Formats: sequence, C-alpha cells, structure tokens
Amino acid sequence: MAGLDEFEFIKSRLRPLSQGAAGAAGLSDDGAVLALGPGEQLAVTADALVEGRHFPFGEAPDLAARKALRVNLSDLASMGARPFAYTTSVIWPKVGFEARADGFVTGLAADQTEFAVRLIGGDTVLAEAPWSIAITAFGRFPAGVSLRRANARPGDVLVVTGTIGDAGLGLKIAGGDWSPQTADHAEHLSTRFQLPEPRISVGVAARDLAHAAIDISDGLLSEARHLAVESGLCALLDLDRMPVSQAALGWLDQQPKKPMALLELAASGDDYELLFAAPPDKVDALIKACRRTGVAAMAVGELRVREAPELVRISYGGQEVRPDRFGFTQF
Amino acid sequence: MAGLDEFEFIKSRLRPLSQGAAGAAGLSDDGAVLALGPGEQLAVTADALVEGRHFPFGEAPDLAARKALRVNLSDLASMGARPFAYTTSVIWPKVGFEARADGFVTGLAADQTEFAVRLIGGDTVLAEAPWSIAITAFGRFPAGVSLRRANARPGDVLVVTGTIGDAGLGLKIAGGDWSPQTADHAEHLSTRFQLPEPRISVGVAARDLAHAAIDISDGLLSEARHLAVESGLCALLDLDRMPVSQAALGWLDQQPKKPMALLELAASGDDYELLFAAPPDKVDALIKACRRTGVAAMAVGELRVREAPELVRISYGGQEVRPDRFGFTQF
Repeated sequence: MAGLDEFEFIKSRLRPLSQGAAGAAGLSDDGAVLALGPGEQLAVTADALVEGRHFPFGEAPDLAARKALRVNLSDLASMGARPFAYTTSVIWPKVGFEARADGFVTGLAADQTEFAVRLIGGDTVLAEAPWSIAITAFGRFPAGVSLRRANARPGDVLVVTGTIGDAGLGLKIAGGDWSPQTADHAEHLSTRFQLPEPRISVGVAARDLAHAAIDISDGLLSEARHLAVESGLCALLDLDRMPVSQAALGWLDQQPKKPMALLELAASGDDYELLFAAPPDKVDALIKACRRTGVAAMAVGELRVREAPELVRISYGGQEVRPDRFGFTQF
Repeated sequence: MAGLDEFEFIKSRLRPLSQGAAGAAGLSDDGAVLALGPGEQLAVTADALVEGRHFPFGEAPDLAARKALRVNLSDLASMGARPFAYTTSVIWPKVGFEARADGFVTGLAADQTEFAVRLIGGDTVLAEAPWSIAITAFGRFPAGVSLRRANARPGDVLVVTGTIGDAGLGLKIAGGDWSPQTADHAEHLSTRFQLPEPRISVGVAARDLAHAAIDISDGLLSEARHLAVESGLCALLDLDRMPVSQAALGWLDQQPKKPMALLELAASGDDYELLFAAPPDKVDALIKACRRTGVAAMAVGELRVREAPELVRISYGGQEVRPDRFGFTQF
C-alpha cells in the first residue's frame, strides 16, 4: 500500500486521539492502564457495527465511526455511567482502507470533543472483509448507583426520552423506501438514523431517580420486553402516549391504519433513546431532570406483576393491540 | 435460523461463561461493572483475529476462540497484569454460525478454567463476512508496577522466554509448505501456532525485575524494534544465543544458510513469548523467576544508546547480519 501503512496510520492518525489519556501511553504499548478514583466503579460495554448490516455500504466514514462510538456511549448512558475512554478493533477492507481512514479519524475526533472521551487502544486489521468497527467503551460512576435492567419493580412507571421511530424512518429514507414532504423532516430523520445522540447527561441525572434503564437500540417494544424479562415482570405500553416527532407525524398521517403504524415505529430500531423504570413518586422528578438536560421525557406505561405468559401488553385507544414483530432480530 | 437464535445463544451458551463474574449480571445488561481493590489499576487490551488472516479457514472453532483469547492474555502478561475478565465482539458468517457456535463456547470455557478469566459482555453480529473474534481483556496489577515498552534504559539486557520461531514453522506445516521428520515435532510446532501459551505468571514475576516488556506477536526482530523505538534506543541481538526448540532445530538442519534461517525464525510471528529489557544486575533473578514458573528464559542481546539510524543490529558468529524483513506486516 502506497501512502499509509498500519504503523504510520496508528502513529500519525490514531495517536493524536489518545492525547490527554495518561494510561494510553500514546498507543505505543500492548494495552492501556486505567485508574479509578476512590469509591468509583467502571462500566464496560462492547458493540460492533458492520458495513452493510448496521450502516449502509458507502456510508460516509466519519458518520460510521461516530455511530459506532455513540451506540457504545448510549449503553454507558443507560447504566448511568459517564464515559471517558474507548478502544477500537477495526477490520478494514483491503481495498478501501485509505478512502475510509481519514474520515474515520475525523469523525472520532469530533465525537471525542463532544463527549469528552479518549481513544486508549485497539487493533487495526486489514482483511478481505466488510468494514467493521468493534468498540469497547469505558465509563465511571460512584460505586453502587449504576442502573441495571433487573432492578425494575412492580408498579414502576416506564418513562422514555426523546421521540420514538425517527431512526426507523431515517432508514426508510436511506433505502429509498419513503420520502418526507419537507427537506427539514428528511434531514431530521436521516440524522436520527446516522448520528444518534447518546443520552449521557440524562443517564447520570437518573441514577438516583430510576430503578432500571435500558437504551433503545432494537426498538421500544423489544427493549420493554428485555426489561420485563430481566425483572420478571410484565410491561404495559400505551401507544397513545408514545412520543413521536413532527417529522414522524408526517409519515403517520400517510398510513391507513394508525395503530399498526405506531406499532411499526415502536418496533423500529436505532433510536438510542433511554427507557426507564421509575417508582411513581419519582416520575415527575425524573422527567424534570431529563428536561434540565434539554431532553424531553414521557411516561408511556408501567411494569406489573406478570400474571400471564405475555411479557409486553400494548394498548391504543383503550383497546389491546398485538404487534407482528417486536423489533430488530438478526435471525 | 432453525435451532439457535441470537438470544438463545447468549442465554444458553454465553451466559454460563459469565458465572462467577459479579459485575457481568449474567450478560443481561448493556454492559458490565468492574470494581478494583484499593491501590489496584486496570490493564486493558484489545486484539481481533479474522478467519483467513490470523487463523486458517476451516480451523477448529475451539482453537480459533482460544487463540483469540490467548493473544489478548499475552498482551496483559507483557504488562505484568493478572487477567480476570474479557468481552467478545464476534462477527459470525451467516452460513456457518451453528457449525462454529458450540466449539467457540467449548474453547473459551476450557481457557476460562486454565487462566481464571470470565466473560463479562460483548456483542453478537451475523453478517456476510468472514468469522472475526474481537476480544477486549482486562487484568489487574498493583498501582505503579506495570511494565511499559518505553521504560527500557541503555545497558538493559534483552531477555526472551521460551523458544523462537516455532509458531512460524507451525504455520508452514498448516500451509503444507514443510513437514517435520517426526510426528512429535509436527505436533509441537502446530500446537505452538494454534494455541500459544500466554506467559502470565512470568509477566507477574517480572514486575519488579524488568524495566520494560513486550509480547512477541509479530516476530522477535519486530518486537525488539518496537522496544528500541519506544525507548529511543538501539537493540542489539545475538542470533547465536536465540533459543530454538528441538523441533525447530530439525528445520534449521535442513537449511543451506544458517544465519538466514535463524533470521527467518526471528522474523516469524505468533510465538507469544515475552521479550524483557532488564538491568544487568537483575538478569539472573529474572531468568530464575521465569524458571520457577516453568518457563525457560535467556539473554539474547542488549539495548544501547542509539548512535546510528539503525534501530536493531543483529550479529551471528561475531559478524553483523541484515534481515530482508523484520516480521509480519499487513501491507
């Protein structure tokens, strides 16, 4: 390869991303060293994105890199952890490494500034394979306060941040399956799909207010089901209260059957909002805490003792509705 | 897919691998929680193996999984850290997931017992892609004692564990490029390539005896050069003293030019031995400490102030020799 070899790439492009991370030793070592303050614990999460699976072939490399980082930061946000570092294990297609390398670095640099995280290590592989970006991200939190899925209790209210279904509509736009009526709406929905906003400040603010949290990567229905499974409860969701954006309303108005269309939004992935289970007496405080970070939040249901096999029960206009699918699955 | 879907795979096969790791929450959460004891620091490393690049197509899945874990444990060993946990981000080819899944789990389970580590999280992706296993591994060490590449000093002796070049010969056997004369030798060399031994106890024992260490993944010459680069010194290597196995001697005896053959072994990858830079007055203690863990070690050279552009100078029989290549590169 002419211009850029592995070591030069690490030295000239990746090493600057480790600046300010003392334990990273400028990426010159086999690994990094992390220290925690007294009473702190470490949150660790790992998620990989693959070209053609999680983002379209030909996606701008900076957006692909940022999304790969952000889906990991979203996991940390759901734990109430504050991210500070990450590693990247990237498999680059042999043909196309140079075309993607600079965008990859530029995108990560932008998000490092935005989210106060630093690259501390990783691996660079060239292979006959689609581009894949596996990231492991690290966050800190005071010992004992992390939000875990299994901690939800009967009677907890389900609170969701932001709006639901935007990213799924952004995917429709990317696939040429639908076009919004205005350019503003198109941009809003596409950005929601390409560049999710990890709700870090929301997660930190919710540490003392919610019992449990999960980030919405595979769709609201799917994540509500996860909470129900892990806590041994049943999730009740009210589609009338599900928050949707103005841009998504434009799509909803074109659909013949509103409840089915709402279900489709609730089953679409990549929103990366947070779903909380909070005790009723903390719900107002939780919603206000979200708003103080600039993020809307809404009660959309509750968790009850599971008396029937169903893990999730969904209502619309006072009637029970049943989804065809719950969310994204790989199989 | 018939028998095994993503969630079933995680629940029935991966979850048991997290047993005993409190912060892993049975892999049911978005991430894991790690706590450190007082005065402890965390070592983190990330390495990915790709089918067809780092292990042959058709390799037994248990061996591929174990090698992917072990190359990460080897990085932790080189830092003097004691491994305790790891995450896996695995991209599975859509055709062949089920054929590989059980072997993958069996292999990891075997190494979890052998090396006292636990799975704490990760990601499972199905794609039209070669099988790739990205692992991030975590080790602990008392604050301040980790071995770093840049800490080597002029006059330090280069000490290497085990024997050099075995894995490269194992790769020749796997590729059908050479056959040893005895089945014992064939098995020894193949095992060295397929299932490297991370030198964890050696790394821990060397914490107070060596200034710097690196694991030999890309060949002795290449890693000696890394040490020289990071410490700003020049590495002198004496091929007469380079340790080789009986099985490798069988190959060496068939080669017309001994120094070139020794250079080839020194430039071949995948040995996963450790290369230390230790002060002269600690060398005997270091070699004895290695032996107490059951691993041979030998002085093979030294680090000097760099007075010429060369990063590595190699001698054999009192003469300087020059390699065609230093080790594995991807470009």
